[in-house]
Amino acid sequence: MQRRRYLKKLSLEEAQRIFLDYPNISRYDKIDEISTLNSLGRITAEPIFAIVSSPHYHCSAMDGVAVRADDTFSASTANPVRLGKDQFCIVDTGDPIPSDFNAVIMIEDIVEIDEDTIEIIDPAVPWQHIRMAGEDIVATELILTRGHKIRPIDIAAMLSAGITSLKVKKKPIVAVIPTGDEIIEPCSNPEQGKIIDSNSYMLTAMITEWGGEPKRWSIIEDNYEKIKSVILQAINESDIVLTSAGSSAGREDFIPPIIEEIGELLVHGISISPGKPTALGVINGKPIIGLPGYPVSMAVSAEAFLKSLLSKMLGIANIPPAKIKSSVSRKIASKLGDKEFVRVKLININDNWTAVPLARGASVLNSLVRADGIMKIPENSEGIVPGEFIEVELMKTPDEIKNSIVIIGSHDLTLDILADEIKAINPYINISSAHVGSLGGLMALKRNEAHIAGTHLLDEETGEYNISYIRKILPDRKIALINLVYRQQGLIVAKGNPKGIKGLNDLVGKGLSYCNRQRGSGTRILLDYELKKLGLSPDDIIGYDREVYTHMAVASAVATGIADAGLGIFASAKALNMDFIPIAEERYDLAIPEEFLSLDGIKIILKTISSDKFKSVVQSLGGYDTRDTGKIIMFA
Amino acid sequence: MQRRRYLKKLSLEEAQRIFLDYPNISRYDKIDEISTLNSLGRITAEPIFAIVSSPHYHCSAMDGVAVRADDTFSASTANPVRLGKDQFCIVDTGDPIPSDFNAVIMIEDIVEIDEDTIEIIDPAVPWQHIRMAGEDIVATELILTRGHKIRPIDIAAMLSAGITSLKVKKKPIVAVIPTGDEIIEPCSNPEQGKIIDSNSYMLTAMITEWGGEPKRWSIIEDNYEKIKSVILQAINESDIVLTSAGSSAGREDFIPPIIEEIGELLVHGISISPGKPTALGVINGKPIIGLPGYPVSMAVSAEAFLKSLLSKMLGIANIPPAKIKSSVSRKIASKLGDKEFVRVKLININDNWTAVPLARGASVLNSLVRADGIMKIPENSEGIVPGEFIEVELMKTPDEIKNSIVIIGSHDLTLDILADEIKAINPYINISSAHVGSLGGLMALKRNEAHIAGTHLLDEETGEYNISYIRKILPDRKIALINLVYRQQGLIVAKGNPKGIKGLNDLVGKGLSYCNRQRGSGTRILLDYELKKLGLSPDDIIGYDREVYTHMAVASAVATGIADAGLGIFASAKALNMDFIPIAEERYDLAIPEEFLSLDGIKIILKTISSDKFKSVVQSLGGYDTRDTGKIIMFA
Repeated sequence: MQRRRYLKKLSLEEAQRIFLDYPNISRYDKIDEISTLNSLGRITAEPIFAIVSSPHYHCSAMDGVAVRADDTFSASTANPVRLGKDQFCIVDTGDPIPSDFNAVIMIEDIVEIDEDTIEIIDPAVPWQHIRMAGEDIVATELILTRGHKIRPIDIAAMLSAGITSLKVKKKPIVAVIPTGDEIIEPCSNPEQGKIIDSNSYMLTAMITEWGGEPKRWSIIEDNYEKIKSVILQAINESDIVLTSAGSSAGREDFIPPIIEEIGELLVHGISISPGKPTALGVINGKPIIGLPGYPVSMAVSAEAFLKSLLSKMLGIANIPPAKIKSSVSRKIASKLGDKEFVRVKLININDNWTAVPLARGASVLNSLVRADGIMKIPENSEGIVPGEFIEVELMKTPDEIKNSIVIIGSHDLTLDILADEIKAINPYINISSAHVGSLGGLMALKRNEAHIAGTHLLDEETGEYNISYIRKILPDRKIALINLVYRQQGLIVAKGNPKGIKGLNDLVGKGLSYCNRQRGSGTRILLDYELKKLGLSPDDIIGYDREVYTHMAVASAVATGIADAGLGIFASAKALNMDFIPIAEERYDLAIPEEFLSLDGIKIILKTISSDKFKSVVQSLGGYDTRDTGKIIMFA
Repeated sequence: MQRRRYLKKLSLEEAQRIFLDYPNISRYDKIDEISTLNSLGRITAEPIFAIVSSPHYHCSAMDGVAVRADDTFSASTANPVRLGKDQFCIVDTGDPIPSDFNAVIMIEDIVEIDEDTIEIIDPAVPWQHIRMAGEDIVATELILTRGHKIRPIDIAAMLSAGITSLKVKKKPIVAVIPTGDEIIEPCSNPEQGKIIDSNSYMLTAMITEWGGEPKRWSIIEDNYEKIKSVILQAINESDIVLTSAGSSAGREDFIPPIIEEIGELLVHGISISPGKPTALGVINGKPIIGLPGYPVSMAVSAEAFLKSLLSKMLGIANIPPAKIKSSVSRKIASKLGDKEFVRVKLININDNWTAVPLARGASVLNSLVRADGIMKIPENSEGIVPGEFIEVELMKTPDEIKNSIVIIGSHDLTLDILADEIKAINPYINISSAHVGSLGGLMALKRNEAHIAGTHLLDEETGEYNISYIRKILPDRKIALINLVYRQQGLIVAKGNPKGIKGLNDLVGKGLSYCNRQRGSGTRILLDYELKKLGLSPDDIIGYDREVYTHMAVASAVATGIADAGLGIFASAKALNMDFIPIAEERYDLAIPEEFLSLDGIKIILKTISSDKFKSVVQSLGGYDTRDTGKIIMFA
């Protein structure tokens, strides 16, 4: 069980400096000479000077006639001038001006007398309506500097200037070496203990986006000598080498010692979270980055080191993402000494930005997929509290985020269906949902952190849903309460119900374990209500304290044997092929403050949930009833 | 000389509505089923649901040992617990947790007693350091909605969820048909009267960027029947058809009548400038866009109609560019009734944005290449005056523009050399130059519209350069005046000097024509000074009133026979292979207000011009002397 130690842990900035400033590490002068026609997105390797002028001759800017200005000086309404055969020449836009003419009169300003004679009433100013040679581009003029990423208009400008080929930076070859005994090629049915290699394909896509040429190697098992030999070969054939996983300080983390053996290990261990177990080194003068195996760590580390290295090699600026200043919806704690990258959802209400943190684990890739931005909490901070403002780097444009309708509250699968249906109707509207339980959703409305709360809160006294809670939490707001669905709640149990569970009574005294939902969730309130009706005590239920945040998490806990049962909706049980014992039907509503009803996104949502299409998709999930879907329950 | 009429001229918004809302015009449901590995940048055609959970089994989140939490409850510092052979199992990060264990203890917290025994002093909480199956993604969960452009992290998330292939929108095939008798394929030596086809290649690049599959057709001459037949064939084989040129209302503008004959002409003539002569129609249910031939018009029109059409077909949002609010440096007049797209350079000083308009002709593609943004002056405005603020759509990120050092003033070729050299040293710094003459440059400093003024203003009384002008125009500012170059000014004349011009005296009384620089330019002041010394009158010089704005424009005027001579620098004459008759050596300096000297970009500029590399490149141009280059002339 022998372990290595990290080198001295460095800050992100120190690590970048040591790595990127290492002598000649970013030196790169390989060049492709390519056709201008194929140059979109490539980086100029040298300044581009015009070969021919554009236009390259004096030409007419209008449809009309070319004349000598001298011949027209005396023209006026009172004294029209007639021009004969040799005094004018018909020209269309772009036609060359014959060398003895020096002005163009527009076709509209000419009276045709006969085939050889025209009459005009205004004198022409010399060079009027003529595009002089070089008006746009003069031969030898600089068109593009080196280090310029070529756009469609640049292609047009180069072609106009007679440039049919040019020198661009060759795309640096970046080797990607996935390592690990447990790693397997992408498939749809991985065996227990095997992990699908998604990392190396994320990297190849990033390399492509950042201007490199990815070359992925086959997966290598955790064998020091084998990995070493592949790295040496890759170093030989590539401009940069990346390894995926094995960069930490565990028993089988071979990358740092290999770099030490055959090259120079510059950095190992960086005070960022996620991304700490990154190893940076040089082998035979070429850069190698040992990337951590957890996907979010890898994404953070690749952005920090690979993107900046590629930009430097290509001679282009590594443009940072746009940033906004945001407050936070609740305290976000952070470890002193580490710069923490927190993925967040952003909400813009009345031009105030609020950030809601997503799952923070280095392994939770989905949190990066769902994020609107990244909040970087500095090393010297223990966290951010409401009222403080902090910069958030955006992963979308501000307009895209502003077009998001934020639904916070209880989780229901139909919200995902809704998000997808909306995209088909209006791709400008994004549905952005976060799951914090029904009470959390109403609290978010109160703090102006959401447009809609999804809620199914049973009032034990009245048996009515949601209304009494809304009145209590949002006493001063006018709220539209609109039904989304009725749904079956029940016990999710293993396929075939091997423990023979018939209802909540079976949870007590039979040694069965339960998986609960979090406090404040409608499902938890429903459970407590039903237990009370049956006279059962939570203390007698094994696992009552084990809380998860979604129906799918409950179903997953049962599916994988963590628990024998959990209360959840039918659709979750069905999705994971579990059995389901109905307990109660409940009403799931959307609470929307009046002031948001005029937003386009809200209007489209309300129209969509009332549509037959949406209702039929929901019904096909099972366990839902759409008899009141879209109906206004309350507007007060 | 028969002409067509435009249909009723429509506003941009009306035209977009009529075209994009035409029944089924944007209906598009062609699909590619592709490997997830190749899906970067493609658009999902359907919602993507997870096939397997990630992780798909309970696994260790740490390197350590798996244990049963029950076995550890009594552990404390005082009472360490020893676990034997069957009570623990060594696990690395990612390893599956054996089914009878339910917690992981980190390797650091374990004392190894012997091979079969470990000792711990803290109890393990059930499920600690275990990633539960589905922690990241639960099978059947929605990962991506339809209409989503796939990023590297999305590829990783899909692969983790067992998705190895997916349905994406097929790229719509967009036919590009270049038309015109005078149009030729790209080359470096176009004949007089021939225009290089740059438009169709700009379009194919735009189509690629916007998610379409371009298919360029060969150039077709201006022949109604031939064009018609190609359009019919293209409509048959493509999803969208574009024509380049021939969309106006001239004699040979065949596109609108062809659309009318074989389809429906929906729009012809739009009240935008540039871009007016756009024709929009439908043939056999498929959209056709007749794009104007002037490149800037084409770019504007393609952005307005093609990009939005492609976005609609692909089911994605057509994200508008970011905007900033800017004031203007001087009045920008605009035609009432037309929405005008003015290309501008942007300057950010003390967080105030100022827009400086670039050349406005529809043919001046270079103005689009050099632009930082597009100012759209509304139809109901006659223009913008200083003090007013107007939105500018950005073509770069705000950070890129803020990293620009703006040099306004006299034109000198070495500024382009400087811009390119800077890119090689620091790609983050952009040199953005605009040519308004030396006096204009000092005025721009006064109005805080530039960081540097390039100036060569001769004080006729003292014979000294620049200083007296700076004192007069910027009396309260501390200015660093730094020499860039000395340069030869002289008469640029045709190769071989066929008119035998020997000096300025020859400009009078010999019927020779002259091309002048604009008022306020240092060259103009030099000319007037030299004329005065010789006792010559401007009135006696033919062409004295013909003003152009750069040395290259003077050289070009001579090269193309517009003028017999013009005063300019040696490098311009050399660039166009003209003869040069030296008149005077002058000093060209950079004036920099003290407050900008601390900017990184300015520091790099000053370091660069002092470098041997820069001086040797400048000397190789000829006509320059670098004896004082980089020297501080004045700092007061």
